Amino acid sequence: MMEPQRAPEWRIERWFNTEKPLALAALRGRVVLAVAFQMLCPGCVSHGLPQAIRARQVFPECDLAVVGLHTVFEHHEAQGTPAALVAFLHEYRIPFPVGLDMPDPERGLPQTMRAYGMQGTPTTLLIDRDGRFRLHKFGHLDDMHLGAVIATLVAETARAPDFSDPAAQTRCDSDGCRIETGAIPRG
Amino acid sequence: MMEPQRAPEWRIERWFNTEKPLALAALRGRVVLAVAFQMLCPGCVSHGLPQAIRARQVFPECDLAVVGLHTVFEHHEAQGTPAALVAFLHEYRIPFPVGLDMPDPERGLPQTMRAYGMQGTPTTLLIDRDGRFRLHKFGHLDDMHLGAVIATLVAETARAPDFSDPAAQTRCDSDGCRIETGAIPRG
Amino acid sequence: MMEPQRAPEWRIERWFNTEKPLALAALRGRVVLAVAFQMLCPGCVSHGLPQAIRARQVFPECDLAVVGLHTVFEHHEAQGTPAALVAFLHEYRIPFPVGLDMPDPERGLPQTMRAYGMQGTPTTLLIDRDGRFRLHKFGHLDDMHLGAVIATLVAETARAPDFSDPAAQTRCDSDGCRIETGAIPRG
Amino acid sequence: MMEPQRAPEWRIERWFNTEKPLALAALRGRVVLAVAFQMLCPGCVSHGLPQAIRARQVFPECDLAVVGLHTVFEHHEAQGTPAALVAFLHEYRIPFPVGLDMPDPERGLPQTMRAYGMQGTPTTLLIDRDGRFRLHKFGHLDDMHLGAVIATLVAETARAPDFSDPAAQTRCDSDGCRIETGAIPRG
Repeated sequence: MMEPQRAPEWRIERWFNTEKPLALAALRGRVVLAVAFQMLCPGCVSHGLPQAIRARQVFPECDLAVVGLHTVFEHHEAQGTPAALVAFLHEYRIPFPVGLDMPDPERGLPQTMRAYGMQGTPTTLLIDRDGRFRLHKFGHLDDMHLGAVIATLVAETARAPDFSDPAAQTRCDSDGCRIETGAIPRG
Repeated sequence: MMEPQRAPEWRIERWFNTEKPLALAALRGRVVLAVAFQMLCPGCVSHGLPQAIRARQVFPECDLAVVGLHTVFEHHEAQGTPAALVAFLHEYRIPFPVGLDMPDPERGLPQTMRAYGMQGTPTTLLIDRDGRFRLHKFGHLDDMHLGAVIATLVAETARAPDFSDPAAQTRCDSDGCRIETGAIPRG
Repeated sequence: MMEPQRAPEWRIERWFNTEKPLALAALRGRVVLAVAFQMLCPGCVSHGLPQAIRARQVFPECDLAVVGLHTVFEHHEAQGTPAALVAFLHEYRIPFPVGLDMPDPERGLPQTMRAYGMQGTPTTLLIDRDGRFRLHKFGHLDDMHLGAVIATLVAETARAPDFSDPAAQTRCDSDGCRIETGAIPRG
Repeated sequence: MMEPQRAPEWRIERWFNTEKPLALAALRGRVVLAVAFQMLCPGCVSHGLPQAIRARQVFPECDLAVVGLHTVFEHHEAQGTPAALVAFLHEYRIPFPVGLDMPDPERGLPQTMRAYGMQGTPTTLLIDRDGRFRLHKFGHLDDMHLGAVIATLVAETARAPDFSDPAAQTRCDSDGCRIETGAIPRG
């Protein structure tokens, strides 16, 4: 099996349901479930988002971060505005932070969607405690399977930090954010 | 039991999924199922609209007209525009005509919603072959019950016109609008 | 369209959930919904019987009789005994009368099942107020469709008795059973 | 938190869907999901058993054993015979081994049901790789939660054998049964 890839940082125009922006790097140490959706996508409304809400209820915050990504790639006028998303999040009582994926007017797909190579919505992503990309599923995923995969990742101990990775220099985990190590000689 | 009331004409800003405006009066002779909804109302999306689609499939067009009424009373910026509604109707594959209820900026509720005394969305309305208001239900209605009520109204023969009723003089049915009352001076 | 056939009388070994045997002829004047099932048939347990219970809730007794027919054609040892059926009806809280279809050891299928030409279970039957066979469906039937068909039959007025039909001589309707007319000269 | 108890061995009158009896001790090394059911229990048929089938599909055999326990405590005549259970397992396409819990005529409850202190059916039990009792739930359990708990137990490494426990001396795992303790004098 190939070594899992590091999940690329997401690019977000604006965050909702959170007081401050939520960098993927800042979630290091926890498993991350990210659900890419569009508010006018029937499969997202009937399946993807309710499933993410159930995951939020089953797993504790300290083990699992749940994040929505509003990846608008069609009907921009109808669903691309912050006002539309705010109304949607309110009516559907979405309890977790949601980021509006950064539009890329020239290329059609918003930037995070493109960086992750998503095929559509809903797409379910799982990122492990070390920031590595572990599951990428377009479409339906059954609850027992998703619960099992999340729990398996939760049960993994975070690996020792790898300082050869520049991202590690702003590394944060569930204990807090570490002092950047660029200036600190090791070994 | 009180005599059923004549259903008030609806007031529509713009129609979708139909080539021409759809006056309630023009549906006389058929039973009319009207579902008032908002595109960001979860109960409408998960229950009211799918049920109306099932009714469209079960009953023939000549017996039952199915109409959606987009009665926006909140989140006007997000769901009140024609562009938003067009995108929604496309994504949810709504197969029947939908009217955007005429806004009434001063009073909040759109005009048809107010004229019918609706309490919220979804609201299911049934109007008989004679244009009389026979069922008004806010919220959930089970499929077997709704199927039974529609079929009961379908089985009723349209009544003979009642010329004491001024509305009868402009009576319309599925064949078109008739000039009724040559012998009765009007105006 | 062919004239509907008269529904054959059912042949029942024993009745449950009713104080006295329930001849089909004695239900004349009401619409009859009969659901043929087997207690170990998954589609009957998950769909056919719950749907019949919903029909019992939606339509009044005076318009619709709901009857179960336990048509055991396999696993006779497990589900063919009265004790097994009693336990099943209790656990599943079946609220309507159920007849145990008369076994026919020589031919395999129980007698009512064979007389009606049923293909399996669940089978839904509808018989009109005049005792004529109007719907015969093996397998799934959606609630709105079934509700509509029942209501259509309920809305039909019972026809005037046809004394050329010998069955009419023991005719019963919701007002009671009529005096046999064999001795009454006509015309 | 209290130390988990060792799960008592089950007492089975007869096994189905397996070529040989299935001692709990022989499953040591794998997580065990056991679902206690009765074939005429609606909640077992609609929820408990389908969920166990889904668990069988999600987890590999080498990590999770799924076992049904037919714990008949009522309607013995209808559901207590092997013939009834065989017919049920066939019609409901139950793919995993099922044991008929040993009846205890004097005390009402069958013996495994009593030994585990079960309150009714369905009851879901989880036993870890070391044979310890980790979850006991009467009634409904949602899929994501159950998937997560199973995966958490699967992720645990079997503990080192505890030779103070006599049961450990006949310890078995998925590789077979080991003779453990030749060097350790006992008694």
